[in-house]
Amino acid sequence: MTESKDWSQLRINGERLTQRIAELAEIGAIDGGGVCRLALSDEDKQGRDRVCDWMKQLGLRISVDRVGNVIAIRDGEEDLAPVMTGSHIDTVATGGRYDGNLGVLAGLEVIETLNDAGISTRYPLGVGFFTNEEGARFAPDMMGSGVNQGALDVDEVLATKGIDGKLVGEELVRIGYNGDTEVGQFRAHCFVELHVEQGPVLEQESTTIGAVTGVQGISWTEYRINGVSNHAGTTPMHLRHDAGYVAASIAVEARRIATDMGGSQVATVGVSELIPNLVNVIAKQALVTVDLRNMDESLLQSAERRMTEFVHGLAESEGVEISRQTLARFEPVVFDEAMVALIEQSATGLGSSCKRMPSGAGHDAQMFAPNCPTAMVFVPSKGGISHNVTEYTSPEELEAGANVLLRVMLTKANQSNN
Amino acid sequence: MTESKDWSQLRINGERLTQRIAELAEIGAIDGGGVCRLALSDEDKQGRDRVCDWMKQLGLRISVDRVGNVIAIRDGEEDLAPVMTGSHIDTVATGGRYDGNLGVLAGLEVIETLNDAGISTRYPLGVGFFTNEEGARFAPDMMGSGVNQGALDVDEVLATKGIDGKLVGEELVRIGYNGDTEVGQFRAHCFVELHVEQGPVLEQESTTIGAVTGVQGISWTEYRINGVSNHAGTTPMHLRHDAGYVAASIAVEARRIATDMGGSQVATVGVSELIPNLVNVIAKQALVTVDLRNMDESLLQSAERRMTEFVHGLAESEGVEISRQTLARFEPVVFDEAMVALIEQSATGLGSSCKRMPSGAGHDAQMFAPNCPTAMVFVPSKGGISHNVTEYTSPEELEAGANVLLRVMLTKANQSNN
Repeated sequence: MTESKDWSQLRINGERLTQRIAELAEIGAIDGGGVCRLALSDEDKQGRDRVCDWMKQLGLRISVDRVGNVIAIRDGEEDLAPVMTGSHIDTVATGGRYDGNLGVLAGLEVIETLNDAGISTRYPLGVGFFTNEEGARFAPDMMGSGVNQGALDVDEVLATKGIDGKLVGEELVRIGYNGDTEVGQFRAHCFVELHVEQGPVLEQESTTIGAVTGVQGISWTEYRINGVSNHAGTTPMHLRHDAGYVAASIAVEARRIATDMGGSQVATVGVSELIPNLVNVIAKQALVTVDLRNMDESLLQSAERRMTEFVHGLAESEGVEISRQTLARFEPVVFDEAMVALIEQSATGLGSSCKRMPSGAGHDAQMFAPNCPTAMVFVPSKGGISHNVTEYTSPEELEAGANVLLRVMLTKANQSNN
Repeated sequence: MTESKDWSQLRINGERLTQRIAELAEIGAIDGGGVCRLALSDEDKQGRDRVCDWMKQLGLRISVDRVGNVIAIRDGEEDLAPVMTGSHIDTVATGGRYDGNLGVLAGLEVIETLNDAGISTRYPLGVGFFTNEEGARFAPDMMGSGVNQGALDVDEVLATKGIDGKLVGEELVRIGYNGDTEVGQFRAHCFVELHVEQGPVLEQESTTIGAVTGVQGISWTEYRINGVSNHAGTTPMHLRHDAGYVAASIAVEARRIATDMGGSQVATVGVSELIPNLVNVIAKQALVTVDLRNMDESLLQSAERRMTEFVHGLAESEGVEISRQTLARFEPVVFDEAMVALIEQSATGLGSSCKRMPSGAGHDAQMFAPNCPTAMVFVPSKGGISHNVTEYTSPEELEAGANVLLRVMLTKANQSNN
């Protein structure tokens, strides 16, 4: 039975959502209102147990896969692939309480709202939390969702050593989340993830909902510059081979490239180190990193090309050697246009302001994107601050985001086959 | 008796000079052919004792002043102020064997050459070595010559604490160089110092002798930049307050100022540090230092003004706070034109190539410059390298420099009164 139903008055319970976020934040709580629940730590285990208890209370069927991803299913009227939501509950060492947790707990809130209203859906609904999204203890990040969706090899991941020398596989056994569900095969009907923006755009534009169009492609390059150390007073400008000047020029050029290109192009030089780093000595060595991001792969390549050409010219004009190493390279992920449009319509229908925007950070959703229609819902982060105990999203914004999630999931879960 | 004499065939003994340099370099020798004789250390005492022995062997009258400066005098035919030369024998922790030592030992070589030839002079001749020129153990540098010539207060200097917590006064007593000659009153007839260039100019221009016209004025400024840390992916370019970008822009502008202005203007950003210094985080804080030098005080001020205006504009356009601290500021020292011309004539007369040039580094000579006609003779430093065990000047260049010193001292020491 897939007849159209009127859910226009249905809303999630914002207070209940905020309460669950606060309760989960008590586990691994740190000064300033933040949370430290590194993946597969004792605190992560406690957090997982708490969320699993809630899942059971909501009557969901829980499965745990071989890398500890937990997926809870509410049956649909038909035996179909589930309409999925979810995120992660691990945090960085000085994390906030919203990053990841919001997406999981808003999923539970959607389920509870439907349970309370006695509403069934054609498609099953699923809520998951995925192991080690942050990558703060084990590399790479988005580990669990990557394995679940077949992008990462399970055996390699289980043998991954963390910053404390412990292995993923050992730690899963230790905390009791080494499940037996096979990985790589699970397919959702669609995936939608609610997350805090972790950037300043929505707040700056006084907009409540971001309809996320995709995840920016990322290009990280490290440049090591070898110049010649010399006396700052006795060396004429034309005889210098100044590694520090070259490093600075790269940083200024990165800004120029981003502002010239506009659009979604951003560029950051976050690391800059000089040797010997003395007032009156021309640097003989320098290290800089360039972080380039764009939603469009060809534009990202164009930014990379501009930087490479600039660096070549600079090496020649300054008479220094520059070696280049790629630290990370991910192509952009483009989300499903129909899903993005559905998020926009849902937000607008609920009276929330909404804008389309890219995600500058990686999320579990991008691991689902190759396998099913996927998109994300963003809510504002105060001051754009994230990975910080002062991370904050207001209760009204949390509620607005969860209501969009509710409407998107309900719409997808009652879609007919055409 | 001041009649003109023919010294045109008189030459110093290059082998003897090189031998003395090698012998002195054995005291505090370190790997790679370098020397570590920090001021007032045990090694400095041994070096001082060795040089004093040589001074005595040459029949010189030695005096030691209250800060350990040693001045050795060869009497003239008349009771006049001496024609002085000298330099220092202390080194930095990983110093070379020529810096300072050359000027002292070439002075002794001049004396020995005159002794051997039985030549007397109208004016007395003096050779000195001055305490703690390097400033590597006690600040400031050029300490001994500064006190000797009345630029620094003797009691303050004696109470100065070194990097190891020891006081100058205590260490002078410990090594037995707390002399009783009063300071601040001693006046030379003129002062000429032979020194290695510590820069690349003479080598690059295949020139043997530098006739030093003065010492560049020095302006050291530290800028601390306070921006806002944010995510490199999620923060649009126009919403950034990037301390790292500001630091890099200052370094690039420093280069622009120096190349725009030309002449003796140089500019160096040798220190650059970012916080938190992570690939994907916009820096919230940055520290850079700007080292500006010029031979002309008004031009140096103009360079400082340009930098200050640039930094003000940048703080406003990027929305960051920049605090500014002057770390050091010395006006240029202009040497005596007649002395510089005499060095040029002497070098040319000896068949050595010669060019007028400023000194980018500070030297004891500049402390004498306000009180008597002063100039310096430079010889090449291989690769411009100094304050390094690989510092090198060839025996031929050392000899050429010492012969210029000989001729300049002889000329000045036989000058008539007009």
